[in-house]
Amino acid sequence: MRIFAFAGSLRKESLNHQLAQIISSKLQDSNVDVDLAKFSEFNMPLFDGDLQSVSGIPDSTQKLADRISMADGLVIVSPEYNHGVPGPLKNAIDWLSRIRPFPTAGKPCFLASAAPGLVGGTRGLIAMRPALSFMGAWISGESFSLAQANQMMAEGKIVNDELDKILNGMLERFTKVTASLQIK
Amino acid sequence: MRIFAFAGSLRKESLNHQLAQIISSKLQDSNVDVDLAKFSEFNMPLFDGDLQSVSGIPDSTQKLADRISMADGLVIVSPEYNHGVPGPLKNAIDWLSRIRPFPTAGKPCFLASAAPGLVGGTRGLIAMRPALSFMGAWISGESFSLAQANQMMAEGKIVNDELDKILNGMLERFTKVTASLQIK
Amino acid sequence: MRIFAFAGSLRKESLNHQLAQIISSKLQDSNVDVDLAKFSEFNMPLFDGDLQSVSGIPDSTQKLADRISMADGLVIVSPEYNHGVPGPLKNAIDWLSRIRPFPTAGKPCFLASAAPGLVGGTRGLIAMRPALSFMGAWISGESFSLAQANQMMAEGKIVNDELDKILNGMLERFTKVTASLQIK
Amino acid sequence: MRIFAFAGSLRKESLNHQLAQIISSKLQDSNVDVDLAKFSEFNMPLFDGDLQSVSGIPDSTQKLADRISMADGLVIVSPEYNHGVPGPLKNAIDWLSRIRPFPTAGKPCFLASAAPGLVGGTRGLIAMRPALSFMGAWISGESFSLAQANQMMAEGKIVNDELDKILNGMLERFTKVTASLQIK
Repeated sequence: MRIFAFAGSLRKESLNHQLAQIISSKLQDSNVDVDLAKFSEFNMPLFDGDLQSVSGIPDSTQKLADRISMADGLVIVSPEYNHGVPGPLKNAIDWLSRIRPFPTAGKPCFLASAAPGLVGGTRGLIAMRPALSFMGAWISGESFSLAQANQMMAEGKIVNDELDKILNGMLERFTKVTASLQIK
Repeated sequence: MRIFAFAGSLRKESLNHQLAQIISSKLQDSNVDVDLAKFSEFNMPLFDGDLQSVSGIPDSTQKLADRISMADGLVIVSPEYNHGVPGPLKNAIDWLSRIRPFPTAGKPCFLASAAPGLVGGTRGLIAMRPALSFMGAWISGESFSLAQANQMMAEGKIVNDELDKILNGMLERFTKVTASLQIK
Repeated sequence: MRIFAFAGSLRKESLNHQLAQIISSKLQDSNVDVDLAKFSEFNMPLFDGDLQSVSGIPDSTQKLADRISMADGLVIVSPEYNHGVPGPLKNAIDWLSRIRPFPTAGKPCFLASAAPGLVGGTRGLIAMRPALSFMGAWISGESFSLAQANQMMAEGKIVNDELDKILNGMLERFTKVTASLQIK
Repeated sequence: MRIFAFAGSLRKESLNHQLAQIISSKLQDSNVDVDLAKFSEFNMPLFDGDLQSVSGIPDSTQKLADRISMADGLVIVSPEYNHGVPGPLKNAIDWLSRIRPFPTAGKPCFLASAAPGLVGGTRGLIAMRPALSFMGAWISGESFSLAQANQMMAEGKIVNDELDKILNGMLERFTKVTASLQIK
């Protein structure tokens, strides 16, 4: 089983990328083949239908689509920006939606977020569901929002045992679903 | 495989219940064991934490929970009321959420809607995702919104061939997922 | 200027009703005429179009509509249930929407929430915007979510000075808008 | 009174920009001073906190912020992309949110959309409310979604009289509110 993971933030020291790394390690420890990307590998222009008419799908979009297509499941770790999906991530989703069939169609998807504040990014994850669902992803009901994330991660681990255990349970259920779920 | 289906409207001539009947017939034709309920079978009081403290979970809530628990997957057909989840349906979800583990946890779920207007109830289905996801359901990315539903159904069938075919494809994929998906 | 306030919870010791009381006191201190209701005054049946056909708008709905209509602005303090609008509150909104013109049309509205957890009910307030907006309310962009609310209120006051000040600023701006805003 | 209007699409022949032009004409006919921009005037990089640390707020963001600040109210006409806010528009909002106070704070805002399909972009407008509300805008409960927009506009006008009248009413109420609403 192969899972493609990335964080929806372009920052180098992104808390969300750190959480994506922690999740990837956990999955690898469970013998999952993980493809962890940096979101900055897929630098895209702002979506513009005219641009698509002239130049087609950007290479970086196609590259992202291919990585998604090769995976059995997706892990997207994303900050919330202004109670919503980060613009750059929504922009990538909008470009991806120009490829048919949608690369995300039928893919099980686990959402997580990390934020320095007390809310933990949960509003952004809620805002992400309509677009990814429209694009055919099967999104895990369970999602993981790490509040006070700047204090909760150290040396590639989640320092709070209870939260760590909760995440382990979610990932175990997610990988079981990803291993079993068949559409085609 | 057993699927529990109901429409989130209390009206007797509900277009949404008609669509739930059509979906149930289609599933039965594919040898799925369908449990089709009327939402009015589960008449609940308005959710009130004090009432729960005194009287516990209402019998009708427990009955709904049991029907959900016995099924491998759920089909919820629901109108949109004022761009959101119908109050009575949200009320039922809120009562269900007092039962642990959530009866909906790990259940694949297909959402559909029917409405006389041109929008077809799609905004209500979007609004339903956060609560059902929080309660652990795996909601199909695909959902079916039947616009102009008063003209689109007759004699227990969808009269538009193209829409009928789209729905068939969605249900085929949903039942494949429901048959294959394993969590425990 | 008259403001109608209530909390969207039926519980007697509701944290949200306590917060509604605090907000009402603050508004009264600013010489606003406040009509503070208990949500349980407006006990309604579950919304059912057939019931409306037979019995019309319930008296309790009409009573709530009248209280809204007599006010220049609204304060709704509400818990979040399962990341959404509480079923009983959405049910009341759905009944209100059967009255034309919508009693909420053109009314400035301030949203607040209180919750024992760290998130403070903010997801429920986000979920409330589509329905109230559809029904013509002008909802303040600013809203107040009181996290750890069981520790944050005592003797009819918010015990944290910083949060108290934030709320004061929001209410001051809300009452200025309510006093000035003219539609008809 | 001055209103700043733009469409959240980068396409030259954007139906949404056409609708923004129609709305602008209507407002000018009512003696409103309209500042109608093309969204492509504000071409921004993808939001990246590291980029902000190095280079500050982009000039195009500041230009957009200034245009917003100089206006008494905003009209945003936007397509929906995949049931959500267009990535480029959310990206602009995310950049704007790095300026304090938020340029949108206290601004009355009217939302509209145009789409070739039957749904008319209404889901995208719903998705836009959380971010703009968080940034302090007072969003009109009324919004205008033009379905089948490719057939519904000609020669700078809306060809359907009933829809045209509905829009006129909404704009009349919006300008009354914008003229009267006072915060500071």
